[in-house]
Amino acid sequence: MNRRKFIKNTALTGAGLTLTNSLLNCAENPSDKKETVVAESEKSEPSLPLVIATWHVKEATAKAMEVLQAGGNALDAVEQGCMVEEANEKGQSVGKGGLPDRDGNVTLDACIMDKNGNCGAVVYLQNIKHAVSVARKVMDDTPHVMLAGEGAQQFALSQGFETEDLLTEASRKAWEKWKVEAKYKPIINIENHDTIGMLAIDKNGDISGACTTSGLAYKMGGRVGDSPIIGSGLFVDNEIGAAVATGLGEEVVKTVGSFLVVELMRQGKSPQEACEEAIGRIVNKPNSNYKDFQVGYIAVNKKGETGSYSIHQWFSMTKFQNGVNEQIQSDFFNKEEKS
Amino acid sequence: MNRRKFIKNTALTGAGLTLTNSLLNCAENPSDKKETVVAESEKSEPSLPLVIATWHVKEATAKAMEVLQAGGNALDAVEQGCMVEEANEKGQSVGKGGLPDRDGNVTLDACIMDKNGNCGAVVYLQNIKHAVSVARKVMDDTPHVMLAGEGAQQFALSQGFETEDLLTEASRKAWEKWKVEAKYKPIINIENHDTIGMLAIDKNGDISGACTTSGLAYKMGGRVGDSPIIGSGLFVDNEIGAAVATGLGEEVVKTVGSFLVVELMRQGKSPQEACEEAIGRIVNKPNSNYKDFQVGYIAVNKKGETGSYSIHQWFSMTKFQNGVNEQIQSDFFNKEEKS
Repeated sequence: MNRRKFIKNTALTGAGLTLTNSLLNCAENPSDKKETVVAESEKSEPSLPLVIATWHVKEATAKAMEVLQAGGNALDAVEQGCMVEEANEKGQSVGKGGLPDRDGNVTLDACIMDKNGNCGAVVYLQNIKHAVSVARKVMDDTPHVMLAGEGAQQFALSQGFETEDLLTEASRKAWEKWKVEAKYKPIINIENHDTIGMLAIDKNGDISGACTTSGLAYKMGGRVGDSPIIGSGLFVDNEIGAAVATGLGEEVVKTVGSFLVVELMRQGKSPQEACEEAIGRIVNKPNSNYKDFQVGYIAVNKKGETGSYSIHQWFSMTKFQNGVNEQIQSDFFNKEEKS
Repeated sequence: MNRRKFIKNTALTGAGLTLTNSLLNCAENPSDKKETVVAESEKSEPSLPLVIATWHVKEATAKAMEVLQAGGNALDAVEQGCMVEEANEKGQSVGKGGLPDRDGNVTLDACIMDKNGNCGAVVYLQNIKHAVSVARKVMDDTPHVMLAGEGAQQFALSQGFETEDLLTEASRKAWEKWKVEAKYKPIINIENHDTIGMLAIDKNGDISGACTTSGLAYKMGGRVGDSPIIGSGLFVDNEIGAAVATGLGEEVVKTVGSFLVVELMRQGKSPQEACEEAIGRIVNKPNSNYKDFQVGYIAVNKKGETGSYSIHQWFSMTKFQNGVNEQIQSDFFNKEEKS
């Protein structure tokens, strides 16, 4: 099941799946559930290296694990993992083939953060597919942490990146269909936003993370969400752990979600508990309209323990560890919509 | 003493001032010191409304207090306070007259956050002086929280903002002088960055904050620092308090400083203790090169208690409360450079 379908199905009943509160990580296929849970509980110490990512992106996690198994570091792993999705033209939320803004422009946001707390980000980048690699160049080769728009593109060109048209035929058609009933304000719902966030721990036990997206479909020109924002879309502290966010970026930014998850782990919470409390910070706001949007977090701590949690059902995490590359259904807050 | 001179003097000896650890807030003039400290300790409950801002910006805090005294809310107060500095052509770090990037373009960043946790931001905005007001429009009139570059400018024009050349003759001359020895990488030192951040509590006890800057002088095109980043440059939680940052934005972003200050206050720390711990998070990093840059935080909690702290000496906070609009010298970490 692809990411878009997952998100679309958030408002639907669960197609036969029964998820319970106590199953924090359950496999997509009901027949796998018990097996997966037992396997998790038997592990006294999670083994390294490991990779986790938002949504169902097994090809991306496989690429990252290939880097790690070859002795590569977590930073290279998350960059190369994210690049798989950026190059995948079928994915309409990241890189080439991403759904455009209301004016038909595909604009990309990405960031990356390493074991030393260095980071790089690009926002509102156009015509260059591998936004995560430009973000890494910002980190590695400039004194800055974020470049925007034309400035980001000029920098990328100076570094040898080449421009290409990122609007695919499929995304152009989807945009033209949207335009028929387009309103001034884009409809913020749970169908048109998702992001690839990836965290890895290498054989040395060092953590890095990255995040890349084409953002909210049919957004206003220049809109930037949480994905390239250090602290909101991503945060890494190599002594504690790391977290990434997906969903409606505006709501993640307001609670600085990924940094919050890491701070909660610093206070002793498990990755799962930290993700749950960060979602709680959103849904427990006075007058929160959380029923109208989705946010999901995934997190890993220094020991290699992982967690994931979302507001609504159908969020998932892909995890590659101990030779197993699997999609793990996340537990979620809004049990009213449970099938 | 203006802000630029304050920063320049960071590396110099203290011109006769003796600051001690125990004086968390000391007045600029030594003869005022004792008086100020006594006045602070006598207050059992700080009175509202109040305004604080980074650096020496008494005209800006006076404008904000005027709004508050007339019964205006904290959101209007911080916007109008920041606008004073944006319109001040002599200030070379904010709005009109801001020092340009390496290519001679003045590009502005700003954000604003209200009592309900709503926020708006613009990054890499050109040709429009009142970046903070565009940020507020993003918050009030779009479903987004951040607009960048051309997209931000287009939105501003649609809202009735007018374009103007922001590069003043003085800033053009400074840039041309810099170009003589310009290197590919801008020199990150403590002479060329400061930002106006402002926090206010209105008569109802509600908190808002805003931040506006032209960013690091002679930055690379498209560079964005901490100032427009919710969580880094600014964070407001109306139940807890608020914080803003100034200094080298890249270093604030890496520790998500303003959100960290608010989280520390949530855990029970005073604004002063929270600012000190957030600076500690920067200077205690392995291999921190904090001697090469300045970062300063100011914070206020729900009770109206305030704090400020920086890495190096000569950072200050302007505070308007109880009819007194005063510049308060901040305590700082690097006592080695103390006179």
